[in-house]
Amino acid sequence: MDKLRIAVIGAGYWGPNLVRNFRNSPDWDLVAVCDLDPLRAARVVGDRSTVEVETDVSRLLERDDVDAVAIATPARTHAELAVAALEAGKHVLVEKPLASNLEDARRMVEVAAAQGRALMLDHTFCYTPAVRHIRQMIADGVVGDVLYVDSVRINLGLVQPDVNVFWDLAPHDLSILDFILPSGLDVGPVTATGADPLGTGRACIGHASLPLPGGGIANISVNWLSPTKIRSFVVGGRNRTLVWDDLNPMQRVALYDRGVDVATRPDDLAERKQVNVSYRMGDIHVPALREAEALGLMVAEFAAAIREGRAPLTDGHSGMRVLSVLHAIDESLASGHAVSPQRGAAS
Amino acid sequence: MDKLRIAVIGAGYWGPNLVRNFRNSPDWDLVAVCDLDPLRAARVVGDRSTVEVETDVSRLLERDDVDAVAIATPARTHAELAVAALEAGKHVLVEKPLASNLEDARRMVEVAAAQGRALMLDHTFCYTPAVRHIRQMIADGVVGDVLYVDSVRINLGLVQPDVNVFWDLAPHDLSILDFILPSGLDVGPVTATGADPLGTGRACIGHASLPLPGGGIANISVNWLSPTKIRSFVVGGRNRTLVWDDLNPMQRVALYDRGVDVATRPDDLAERKQVNVSYRMGDIHVPALREAEALGLMVAEFAAAIREGRAPLTDGHSGMRVLSVLHAIDESLASGHAVSPQRGAAS
Amino acid sequence: MDKLRIAVIGAGYWGPNLVRNFRNSPDWDLVAVCDLDPLRAARVVGDRSTVEVETDVSRLLERDDVDAVAIATPARTHAELAVAALEAGKHVLVEKPLASNLEDARRMVEVAAAQGRALMLDHTFCYTPAVRHIRQMIADGVVGDVLYVDSVRINLGLVQPDVNVFWDLAPHDLSILDFILPSGLDVGPVTATGADPLGTGRACIGHASLPLPGGGIANISVNWLSPTKIRSFVVGGRNRTLVWDDLNPMQRVALYDRGVDVATRPDDLAERKQVNVSYRMGDIHVPALREAEALGLMVAEFAAAIREGRAPLTDGHSGMRVLSVLHAIDESLASGHAVSPQRGAAS
Amino acid sequence: MDKLRIAVIGAGYWGPNLVRNFRNSPDWDLVAVCDLDPLRAARVVGDRSTVEVETDVSRLLERDDVDAVAIATPARTHAELAVAALEAGKHVLVEKPLASNLEDARRMVEVAAAQGRALMLDHTFCYTPAVRHIRQMIADGVVGDVLYVDSVRINLGLVQPDVNVFWDLAPHDLSILDFILPSGLDVGPVTATGADPLGTGRACIGHASLPLPGGGIANISVNWLSPTKIRSFVVGGRNRTLVWDDLNPMQRVALYDRGVDVATRPDDLAERKQVNVSYRMGDIHVPALREAEALGLMVAEFAAAIREGRAPLTDGHSGMRVLSVLHAIDESLASGHAVSPQRGAAS
Repeated sequence: MDKLRIAVIGAGYWGPNLVRNFRNSPDWDLVAVCDLDPLRAARVVGDRSTVEVETDVSRLLERDDVDAVAIATPARTHAELAVAALEAGKHVLVEKPLASNLEDARRMVEVAAAQGRALMLDHTFCYTPAVRHIRQMIADGVVGDVLYVDSVRINLGLVQPDVNVFWDLAPHDLSILDFILPSGLDVGPVTATGADPLGTGRACIGHASLPLPGGGIANISVNWLSPTKIRSFVVGGRNRTLVWDDLNPMQRVALYDRGVDVATRPDDLAERKQVNVSYRMGDIHVPALREAEALGLMVAEFAAAIREGRAPLTDGHSGMRVLSVLHAIDESLASGHAVSPQRGAAS
Repeated sequence: MDKLRIAVIGAGYWGPNLVRNFRNSPDWDLVAVCDLDPLRAARVVGDRSTVEVETDVSRLLERDDVDAVAIATPARTHAELAVAALEAGKHVLVEKPLASNLEDARRMVEVAAAQGRALMLDHTFCYTPAVRHIRQMIADGVVGDVLYVDSVRINLGLVQPDVNVFWDLAPHDLSILDFILPSGLDVGPVTATGADPLGTGRACIGHASLPLPGGGIANISVNWLSPTKIRSFVVGGRNRTLVWDDLNPMQRVALYDRGVDVATRPDDLAERKQVNVSYRMGDIHVPALREAEALGLMVAEFAAAIREGRAPLTDGHSGMRVLSVLHAIDESLASGHAVSPQRGAAS
Repeated sequence: MDKLRIAVIGAGYWGPNLVRNFRNSPDWDLVAVCDLDPLRAARVVGDRSTVEVETDVSRLLERDDVDAVAIATPARTHAELAVAALEAGKHVLVEKPLASNLEDARRMVEVAAAQGRALMLDHTFCYTPAVRHIRQMIADGVVGDVLYVDSVRINLGLVQPDVNVFWDLAPHDLSILDFILPSGLDVGPVTATGADPLGTGRACIGHASLPLPGGGIANISVNWLSPTKIRSFVVGGRNRTLVWDDLNPMQRVALYDRGVDVATRPDDLAERKQVNVSYRMGDIHVPALREAEALGLMVAEFAAAIREGRAPLTDGHSGMRVLSVLHAIDESLASGHAVSPQRGAAS
Repeated sequence: MDKLRIAVIGAGYWGPNLVRNFRNSPDWDLVAVCDLDPLRAARVVGDRSTVEVETDVSRLLERDDVDAVAIATPARTHAELAVAALEAGKHVLVEKPLASNLEDARRMVEVAAAQGRALMLDHTFCYTPAVRHIRQMIADGVVGDVLYVDSVRINLGLVQPDVNVFWDLAPHDLSILDFILPSGLDVGPVTATGADPLGTGRACIGHASLPLPGGGIANISVNWLSPTKIRSFVVGGRNRTLVWDDLNPMQRVALYDRGVDVATRPDDLAERKQVNVSYRMGDIHVPALREAEALGLMVAEFAAAIREGRAPLTDGHSGMRVLSVLHAIDESLASGHAVSPQRGAAS
């Protein structure tokens, strides 16, 4: 099978990771790296290589030997670049977040549909073996109804000039929720709190509570101000509990065969009697997940979606659902009220 | 030095732990165990023992050979029992929470003051070597300004008939905050969210955000519905970060010699330039804490406070500050707004 | 059912643990504690107790209200005390090691048999839920043929005047091996090495290799000179591998569903071709073991064995097998050769 | 500074790792990859690359644009290839072990000296930040006299046709010991035991005890038959203990500020009194080590040694000391006696 031909736009923070993975992929032929700064692009390409360096996006998009582009530039430039690429007939992979506002995002989705081209979000974590396993365990009913999700993402990172900590880190958690929950990222009114104890002008620490359809709740904690990295993600189900600790390579995912149930009749509750919640204390099961770089699996999915003429697992609609919760979080932070994410965004 | 003479009231869930610790203490002579059910009291006392069993509190309080009582009965009975004991001239130790409402609590504090007797709260965790170390590290300036506190307490436990999950579990976190923060539990408007996915009639999962005086924030997560136990408590300071994991006996407390700072001038922020937060990535230090049962240290403090005629480290005022945040949490849950804890409660 | 009546002889290092467990047991009534030093015995008994203090073993053994004794004195006194107690008609529990030489040990076993009384060794670890689970997994064929056992026991401990580190620590490992292996502690010629880098006059660090019947090997590492505690015990089987880490309460035992097999024919081996060992990389399974104090389960087994008139799980024969490997280790240390443990010791 | 020009010989198991690291290094220009199988070499080089593929070593060694070669072929071919390269004026990096016998090894060292070219061993672990830190802590006296070293290396790996498990895995442990101990790999008579429970014709599980100069001991456990990976390395010193767990990225090295000392006078020992070993139980210190790939640091050292005209940190003499202990281990396995490693090997 012929390789698909890709160019990477943006040789900054994340671009080199994309370059490395397209290069190592049996699906892809890396044709060019494009950056306004040719030295930066050349450094990413490296010595003794015939991968080309481009500095002009328009010229790149006119080339016939490029099937697809991967956009790793600042979020505010995503829409213009992606629309131009789609209109030039290229398939497009975009770094998260999809765009800096919902209107831009909607336009990108519409142009992709009109052009019949793939529009894929690099929601990297959805391609980890861990998240795919969690999704499967929920879909198969092993976990049972999801009672709660607790995600803590304390991460080294630059405090960014345009956005608060939610926009930087929460897209990871939100895209994972969208991916693993049977109903996707379909949440009720969002309550967000934040703090900026160093006076940077934006929230550097944040917490968001997202009501889930069945009465459960997802809590997301994000934090820029800690030099200690924590990535813990717990899914509590009626039948079993899943714990994902991405920093423990020996045991990333553990399935606790433990559940809770309420044995008391509503009458008893009304009479203020003791409520009998019974816990089943079973074994722990640690699945043997293959150790694979998520980015490698992500570029494989991009190729597969193009070849099969189908939407990628993490498509533009998924990107829009994430964006609309981010907007609701911002409004809740500003108003002090719970705010419902805009619907219809991701029909 | 003569031993102080104690009676334990309540032989239910927690009473046996108090009995064991008073018995093993060089400071105390356990005279009697009092419970409405004499068989339950006798079972706690055990065989071949001359510790007496009582079923009548009034008779117990009339005894001359009892210096102090420890009250381990349901919260709604605390006020009446404690006031009676104080008025009978006994020193009083109460299980948390201090009372079921602030008026009762205030009365208990006032009677203790009027009688010149010690009123102590069993805020057990404040007596762990871990929490005492954390308090010291903050007081000594090692941690620096507290930017955030993240406390996760996911615990096995009965869903209780009278109270929601905050009243059951958050007193631990709140009493620890009151103990370790230089300004005590002096927090801004509280935002709380909760969920009751099993339909028990009260929140079984909860999250509360408490603004701290200097612009920082404390987040508290409590959860009854998980058979997986997590107890993680992180204090992020400007200079260093403290991580307390009570379920890791090999390394309960770790002090990360890592800090953050903002190097950018306010002007730059206004111009939307990159904010330079610099991270200092230093070593981790794990102090050698002695392994001691917190309850043992707590009963020692009770004796010391009585003998020295001073307030215990966790006194009635501390109990009132905890209570007033619990009430604010309940109001925030009900109203969907942030709610300021009642001041003056703990003058 | 009437309680059995016990007296503990020896109120030193280990005695108080026995006292606490007999006291808490529904099977036992603790009648007396016996020690040459009456103050030490009284301290162990504690206040407000009617448990009696004895200083004379002969008088103790004459009492009619004592069914059994537990001997927690130095090893060199075990034989005399145990034989006297057995001849007085008492059942006997002895701390490890059974005796300081094999002749004494044999006499103890013979007297117990002649008197029809239980002689039990306090091989405490055999009563942990972890070891009982390991034994079951091997007996059920889940682990498959045992290819190797690696036991590391690095322990705080006093350097003892009479014995080297093997006699102090290895009885734990040896009694566990005796308990879990289908053929018991039936090993080939033992090779032992040791070191005494602080010049104490006896090995403070030791390693022993014990060939197992099927071609496998058990390695035991013991060490007094480390203030860092390690207790790791791995059983590698043809089908699965068991890892027991007693210092990890969240996950004491893990069963790795992983095995190895050799696919190459002997001919290939002769021709020095690549040997195909295939690894099966399956999941990890962590059983839900109850958290129970091993000593509590041990005293329950002592009572059960007496009531059912059967040998205890860890009886005198087991103690003799452990002793004879300890002697072989000493001889190997002294001679620099592999030494076969004396057979027939534990027929 | 001009880059040094390297060719990698051998595109099998380890070659691709060398290729990747030479490619990413600022010190090196990867000119060619040489393998008997041109397709295998081409696959390692990858697409859109101008790195050349060679199949003839003689032709490669005649090239003027190659300063150095890295040899990643089977051990029995090392000597011939390395000597040819050295005589062609190339600097040489060799995978471990240096050669398959001591005579070959000695010849390699002599030719390198005669030619004035660098001969370096890829003792990879010596270039990890962890091992360099351990070496420094010992050299600085922080650890104190080394009382014991315990190294456990349980590793996935092919059972190899030519060698037993010691030759495959123990070179890692031995080269680390040679690197970190003040006196290098200067050990007394070696005792080795092994087992071959699957009947492969060579030891698949092994243990070796190596007496250290000051009375201490190093124990090495290696194992092919476990699908569970363990890499634990403990250095017990008189003042402090170092624990290195290479599979725990959050805390690879921990320095326990704990030591032991003997307070008893020799007279007391003679009188069989209690020996007072006192333990100092201090804090644990986890140094902030940079996360760097050891191979990257190794190729940097190769370049630095060439440029500075000095011996590399892990030179041919180090390789010979490792070889001579491997031979002693084999002899001890065969004879059942302790065997002294051949001296003068590594003068």
